[in-house]
Amino acid sequence: MAYDLAVIGAGPAGLTAGIYAARSGLSTFILERATTGGLANEAWLIENYPGFDSIEGMELMDQMKKHALKYVSILPAEVKKIEIDKNMTLYTNNNSYKSDAVILATGSLHKKLGIPGEAEFIGKGVSYCAACDGFFFKEKKVLVVGGGNTAATEAIYLQDIGCDVTLVHRRDQLRAEKSLEKRLIKSGVKIIWNSVLEEIRGKNLVNSVLIHDLREDVSYELDFDGVFVLIGDSPNNTLASAVDVKLDGQGYIITDKKQRTNLHGVYAAGDVTGGVRQIVVACAEGAIAALSAYEDLSI
Amino acid sequence: MAYDLAVIGAGPAGLTAGIYAARSGLSTFILERATTGGLANEAWLIENYPGFDSIEGMELMDQMKKHALKYVSILPAEVKKIEIDKNMTLYTNNNSYKSDAVILATGSLHKKLGIPGEAEFIGKGVSYCAACDGFFFKEKKVLVVGGGNTAATEAIYLQDIGCDVTLVHRRDQLRAEKSLEKRLIKSGVKIIWNSVLEEIRGKNLVNSVLIHDLREDVSYELDFDGVFVLIGDSPNNTLASAVDVKLDGQGYIITDKKQRTNLHGVYAAGDVTGGVRQIVVACAEGAIAALSAYEDLSI
Repeated sequence: MAYDLAVIGAGPAGLTAGIYAARSGLSTFILERATTGGLANEAWLIENYPGFDSIEGMELMDQMKKHALKYVSILPAEVKKIEIDKNMTLYTNNNSYKSDAVILATGSLHKKLGIPGEAEFIGKGVSYCAACDGFFFKEKKVLVVGGGNTAATEAIYLQDIGCDVTLVHRRDQLRAEKSLEKRLIKSGVKIIWNSVLEEIRGKNLVNSVLIHDLREDVSYELDFDGVFVLIGDSPNNTLASAVDVKLDGQGYIITDKKQRTNLHGVYAAGDVTGGVRQIVVACAEGAIAALSAYEDLSI
Repeated sequence: MAYDLAVIGAGPAGLTAGIYAARSGLSTFILERATTGGLANEAWLIENYPGFDSIEGMELMDQMKKHALKYVSILPAEVKKIEIDKNMTLYTNNNSYKSDAVILATGSLHKKLGIPGEAEFIGKGVSYCAACDGFFFKEKKVLVVGGGNTAATEAIYLQDIGCDVTLVHRRDQLRAEKSLEKRLIKSGVKIIWNSVLEEIRGKNLVNSVLIHDLREDVSYELDFDGVFVLIGDSPNNTLASAVDVKLDGQGYIITDKKQRTNLHGVYAAGDVTGGVRQIVVACAEGAIAALSAYEDLSI
């Protein structure tokens, strides 16, 4: 069977693309290699998605998933390769799917620090998601690395659930929203300014870290049970770059205002296109991509 | 008092801009000349705003309003004039406000047909909003003019609440989403293809219309009690054009990807910028405009 449209990725962008495409009459399906909801699942609290003044990331994504499932199927499979001929063929491990158009909503991944001990202690004290793993560090000392909204929000969360939280940031002020910064300081989170994490140490589990003070140019060791690395994300662009979809300098897919890429029939939406990485923006891009596909296929 | 940012318009774009700006630490307020929620209020049912699989327009806008009011004030006043000097001065009838930046989220207005009888019978059988006025036409014959999503959705609504509905459209197919077209036909709405409304007639109230068949080039009279004109919208660009904000050929404000206009410190978001006129897109543009203002003011 050939579909009108395949959507790769079931985060906010992909789910919204599915809703809009199906409502426009396109035969559509969504392929997701991991969890429906994408990185948005990991936000413990979302307070800026209009209409929900405060909702857990998982809960919001669950509602979007149910919303999408009214119109479209979500298949659990990883697309390994896209072949573009007259139409598209998407290869997963066990199957192939044909469609006239494809929307890449493949999202982004957490950035790594790339320091000694980081890879070694993943799941043994190193985490990229406070909402997922914070619970295990109750009444323990945790270090949060980062200075953006995510780092600030999750530091507050960790403090709230009973961790003893310190945040380390390479500059002398945060990049986070001012309201978050205020709440961060009010919450009792300690902040180490102008410093970077140099090494994560332990035996079976993390028990200390090496911090480098950039101003004094000295390193010193501090005891911690957990390290949360919250320094941003990098785009999942492997599928895109394999078919020569144009990327920008940081690896994000370049689209026009209608979410079209440089390839006919290939659209992109959400975090993989960079820009402001907000759920409502990913949703909007998914909607626009689907409507553009509908427009182009209807001609 | 001088604010960092003024938002003009409290529809989806303006409310979201308010949320994002205030959360970013900007001192912000919203000015609204009419009803909070804008045109979105008039949608009787919204099924494509991600996270709400089915919600009345007024209910969704009420939730967004409450959400925004957690962070920002909404003042009921019409901005008559903007003066741009070192910063902005906004003049209403009784007041003036100073701010460093302004987001134009002034929305759009319903398009008129401009035919004899239309202006004469507004509120006497001619309406631009089925959700507002449909109730008055229960068990009566109504004509819906238009072929887009709004026309189709509202025609179904009118039929559902017990009106006897006919839709007239100038082409031989609708512009509406296919799923809506199917539901429209299933609902029992009669459709007059390839025809336009030429005149609305009556005494004190509408009682008939003149329809012109474009293929046969003949006009004929039909009895109707109500006429719903649902042919689209035009941008509220008066404030923008008065300060030489650049508009496109159809009068929509031109912005870059960050919602900046050609004027420093002036941003635009939502329906007044044209494009895909969807609530989630207006919200996204409001968020981006606010974050851009924050970025520019923080430098």
